[in-house]
Amino acid sequence: MNTSGRFFRFTTFGESHGKALGVVVDGCPAGIEFSETDMMPLLERRRPGLSPLSTPRSESDTPEILSGIFEGRTTGMPVAMMVRNKDARSGDYESARELFRPGHADYTYQKKYGTRDYRGGGRSSGRETVSRVMAGALAMKMLSGNSISFESRIASVHGVSDPGLFEDEILSAKSAGDSVGGVVEVTVKGCPGGLGDPVFGRLDAALSAALMSVGAVKGVEIGDGFSSAEVYGSENNDPMTADENGNVRFLSNHAGGILGGISTGEDIVIRIAVKPTPSISSDQQTVDIHGNKRLISTGGRHDPCIVPRITVVAESMAAVVIADFWLSARAYAPIK
Amino acid sequence: MNTSGRFFRFTTFGESHGKALGVVVDGCPAGIEFSETDMMPLLERRRPGLSPLSTPRSESDTPEILSGIFEGRTTGMPVAMMVRNKDARSGDYESARELFRPGHADYTYQKKYGTRDYRGGGRSSGRETVSRVMAGALAMKMLSGNSISFESRIASVHGVSDPGLFEDEILSAKSAGDSVGGVVEVTVKGCPGGLGDPVFGRLDAALSAALMSVGAVKGVEIGDGFSSAEVYGSENNDPMTADENGNVRFLSNHAGGILGGISTGEDIVIRIAVKPTPSISSDQQTVDIHGNKRLISTGGRHDPCIVPRITVVAESMAAVVIADFWLSARAYAPIK
Amino acid sequence: MNTSGRFFRFTTFGESHGKALGVVVDGCPAGIEFSETDMMPLLERRRPGLSPLSTPRSESDTPEILSGIFEGRTTGMPVAMMVRNKDARSGDYESARELFRPGHADYTYQKKYGTRDYRGGGRSSGRETVSRVMAGALAMKMLSGNSISFESRIASVHGVSDPGLFEDEILSAKSAGDSVGGVVEVTVKGCPGGLGDPVFGRLDAALSAALMSVGAVKGVEIGDGFSSAEVYGSENNDPMTADENGNVRFLSNHAGGILGGISTGEDIVIRIAVKPTPSISSDQQTVDIHGNKRLISTGGRHDPCIVPRITVVAESMAAVVIADFWLSARAYAPIK
Amino acid sequence: MNTSGRFFRFTTFGESHGKALGVVVDGCPAGIEFSETDMMPLLERRRPGLSPLSTPRSESDTPEILSGIFEGRTTGMPVAMMVRNKDARSGDYESARELFRPGHADYTYQKKYGTRDYRGGGRSSGRETVSRVMAGALAMKMLSGNSISFESRIASVHGVSDPGLFEDEILSAKSAGDSVGGVVEVTVKGCPGGLGDPVFGRLDAALSAALMSVGAVKGVEIGDGFSSAEVYGSENNDPMTADENGNVRFLSNHAGGILGGISTGEDIVIRIAVKPTPSISSDQQTVDIHGNKRLISTGGRHDPCIVPRITVVAESMAAVVIADFWLSARAYAPIK
Repeated sequence: MNTSGRFFRFTTFGESHGKALGVVVDGCPAGIEFSETDMMPLLERRRPGLSPLSTPRSESDTPEILSGIFEGRTTGMPVAMMVRNKDARSGDYESARELFRPGHADYTYQKKYGTRDYRGGGRSSGRETVSRVMAGALAMKMLSGNSISFESRIASVHGVSDPGLFEDEILSAKSAGDSVGGVVEVTVKGCPGGLGDPVFGRLDAALSAALMSVGAVKGVEIGDGFSSAEVYGSENNDPMTADENGNVRFLSNHAGGILGGISTGEDIVIRIAVKPTPSISSDQQTVDIHGNKRLISTGGRHDPCIVPRITVVAESMAAVVIADFWLSARAYAPIK
Repeated sequence: MNTSGRFFRFTTFGESHGKALGVVVDGCPAGIEFSETDMMPLLERRRPGLSPLSTPRSESDTPEILSGIFEGRTTGMPVAMMVRNKDARSGDYESARELFRPGHADYTYQKKYGTRDYRGGGRSSGRETVSRVMAGALAMKMLSGNSISFESRIASVHGVSDPGLFEDEILSAKSAGDSVGGVVEVTVKGCPGGLGDPVFGRLDAALSAALMSVGAVKGVEIGDGFSSAEVYGSENNDPMTADENGNVRFLSNHAGGILGGISTGEDIVIRIAVKPTPSISSDQQTVDIHGNKRLISTGGRHDPCIVPRITVVAESMAAVVIADFWLSARAYAPIK
Repeated sequence: MNTSGRFFRFTTFGESHGKALGVVVDGCPAGIEFSETDMMPLLERRRPGLSPLSTPRSESDTPEILSGIFEGRTTGMPVAMMVRNKDARSGDYESARELFRPGHADYTYQKKYGTRDYRGGGRSSGRETVSRVMAGALAMKMLSGNSISFESRIASVHGVSDPGLFEDEILSAKSAGDSVGGVVEVTVKGCPGGLGDPVFGRLDAALSAALMSVGAVKGVEIGDGFSSAEVYGSENNDPMTADENGNVRFLSNHAGGILGGISTGEDIVIRIAVKPTPSISSDQQTVDIHGNKRLISTGGRHDPCIVPRITVVAESMAAVVIADFWLSARAYAPIK
Repeated sequence: MNTSGRFFRFTTFGESHGKALGVVVDGCPAGIEFSETDMMPLLERRRPGLSPLSTPRSESDTPEILSGIFEGRTTGMPVAMMVRNKDARSGDYESARELFRPGHADYTYQKKYGTRDYRGGGRSSGRETVSRVMAGALAMKMLSGNSISFESRIASVHGVSDPGLFEDEILSAKSAGDSVGGVVEVTVKGCPGGLGDPVFGRLDAALSAALMSVGAVKGVEIGDGFSSAEVYGSENNDPMTADENGNVRFLSNHAGGILGGISTGEDIVIRIAVKPTPSISSDQQTVDIHGNKRLISTGGRHDPCIVPRITVVAESMAAVVIADFWLSARAYAPIK
């Protein structure tokens, strides 16, 4: 199930150390200006090898559009995009061929499929998200014409919420051969009211699935999320008012821009919990594929903290979901 | 989008004060013993009117199976089930016909559809979940034959995690004309390893969507969830070992039974944040459908805390998701 | 897979001799006037027991809308509809419990499911189509507001294309204890150009699946269909012209209103081949569920020719497909 | 909607004169040996430029597998495959930029999307089917391990059913600047009984959609198809018997291997009507995109008859459908 979305639907493919990673977006209307350069700034934000905070693997991540664009605009046909892998040192992983790395998908993939592409995590690698960012770029481009935009910020790293301390936390973990996680907050600005479908197509449900489908994410909350479970209804409800034109406005946004699964017109606020990178250099107890107990120290090239690079992935996933519902709202607009 | 699931797929229908609520399960294999009595204990757990902690609305919630069962077993055909509404006092809601209740879906439904069944929240009512419990009952029955079971507990109410204090918290809020929320934890026991599909069909993503699709849920976490974002990788990784038969076991379960979106064979642990019931009797600022500012005190019959009754709904949603992936695993079992 | 459609999506349920047959339409926009009386004329056309040409089984087929309609209009929520079975004489079928009727689905259902509701064919009965007609009625109502309508005619019975001879052919077969089939032609009038999606969502592909999914249908053709395979390209191409307003018109309609899987704006013409009813009273060679060779003469109550009653089913299936693409065209309208 | 299938699901992309055409198969189990060489013989059968009966466009159609294969076998991950276009002389089509070619999708695409890649028909070109053949190759490989195979034959060309005359018919049309169509018959051998799902997932419905989705196909029939509408039930029913092991056998196969939408275990027989190639060199009446009446003689490089090259496409489409239901049957096998 490598397809996401019902209307703005896309299918991703590719492995960490395979030939290429890519995506086919099927369900993008005709008429949108789009080219490789629209993807560049987003891909750059998740590209590895750019700072001591990330893996030293060096990939240019140069995207190529294979179809669906004609004379600079979408035609309504599938938009296929891909990047070729360059710096795929599979040799790094030979030692781990028979070992299950704790915290990784090695064991579950082997259990499920009876085999796995063990090179760099294969399809379960974070590298898979390059496809999502390409799809997100197209979704954002479509939505930008409708004044919908996406922002994100690191809300905390290793439990610390002071941005001035984030880098210290990460480098300190790195020097200890360890890793840390954090919380990322995504905000959708300019989203009109009325996006979302009851009851299994709720906007918050779709956002949750989309964000939780990103590797390393272990929790999702909308608006006040888990905090809302600790207050009174009178504190949590957002009072409503109207502006001079009779447009409904909310006096607070504890709901995070979604009520009954449908957008209210306020900012949509989503927070995700990102676990610490499971690859660490200290010894861990594990087993091999033959069931023997072993010790493992995860080699290869890894991020001591995936949080900074995951922000653009989270924005991309929010964008594809909003794009999906934006198209749905066109389909199901009331009939007078 | 009132359909959930790809394999164990079901569609729900019905409004709070309409004629009936029901579900059609399409995708249940033949051969499972199932009758109305299998649903009774679950429906009873969510039935209103049973305690001072819940709404006084009295519904017997007597289920009727309309199709798909022959000689006591499923035939592989769609299983349609429904309950008729009995105690639907629409009159209670006439006053709110033109008012948007804060924290409810009134405004967003009106905005989206240009109309709404305002009687008791219509389709956005918690009453909609009766359909989910019926589907869940069938999923649980199917899975019980494979030793998979579902449990839930209230982890906290209004921030208080001592079960001895839950009732006090709720009744205290009720007497103040207010409401409270809480956290519910669902555990899937006996789930085999290997359920879940990369990358958008991850088991955790599907569980998140299913749970977040329940009204009043504002957050979902798997395993240690948001807490995992605050610890080191060396603390969060679950070390692995093997039992005497060479079967892989985990020495801890911070991951909540899911790695890389696929079940590990350990207990699957999900927690959801439930917001306080938005219906409260104190005055709240709102607007009417004409854009006029108004005050509202929500009448009708409501739960001061939905948490106790939501447990069985949460279990049901977990069950339909596991059922879905259990069928998926059959379809996609490796070919030797 | 009892769900049809992507946008105007519906799920049917029910067996020939079960409690009820019904449908849940999920994906109908809000605002459409609809009630039971909109279904009556269509249901009447397929109702059994009305003439010597059809089965004497007597069913009033009184539809009940269970949800999704409020104050006379659709609300955007699922529209559940059902009819209860009345004249279900299961006893008629006891003798055939262990016998596979040639030309029926008895054997294939038993083979696939290891069981079957043998009463009147269970779910494989033509009675299942009552659900389709209810869905079709809603689709037609939605489309009628956009001047799209549906017609059908019997093109031939038992190879005879003179309408004055149809009744003779049927009654002659009936008196011989035999049955006949025929060809039905459905025409969609007023369909705008631009409906249909490449390449697997072609309008002709969707119409074919929808019509072929009706029991007894063994062939589908669009426009000139099989005849187009016998002429030159210069004869088969439809020349194009423009009216005084510059609107494109076709000077002929060999294509049956569809080019490249997308509607041209001309009438859409579909023909289906309906096989003779497999239930006949003469002895036929068969086997029982234990693998013993047997003779069978199909008792029960049957139509000597299903063609007259299938016309409204065929129109209904065409309507749900057009409704589906009409919504799709809204979703995917080009972005300027 | 460029995705086909529910279980063996694939998405195609690419235009006639774009950079590449390809397919992503999502839903193929792990463990199947597969490489580019498995595709070669099939691609060769549809490759252009091989005979005077086909277009002189020269494409090597060299496939490249981008993902999903590891150590020679499928891993359960998406299998992305593509061929790059080589001999794309877009210049040939400049003249037709503003003209709608009769019988082609030019007008309907322009009408629907407000734009179109007019180079060689863009996405509506028969060249799109190269993606289908790649998907079909993988489906056939999976099924061949289960002794299911696919055959096809040309049943007629231009109404002539003597194979010795096919080439004459085509060359005669070609020399007259005209084109011809024909009928192709596909047979599925070795298909077990029990494939197919009621009621909208009927095997015959799915095959019809799959075959009708191929450009130029205007009709589909199963078994005796339209002929079955002209005979008595006593002639059309296939009598049943049992072999020495008690296995059910049919004494004839008018049904074409499908009853009630589910395979019987006999050969599955499908026939499709292929219209004459719309590109012909004689003058035809048309309009341009501005609504002016014009004459057109279709230049470019075309097949005078697409029938010979469509056979492998038809087999491929049958294969992906059977693969889909083969996986479905695993998912929904009865539970004892």
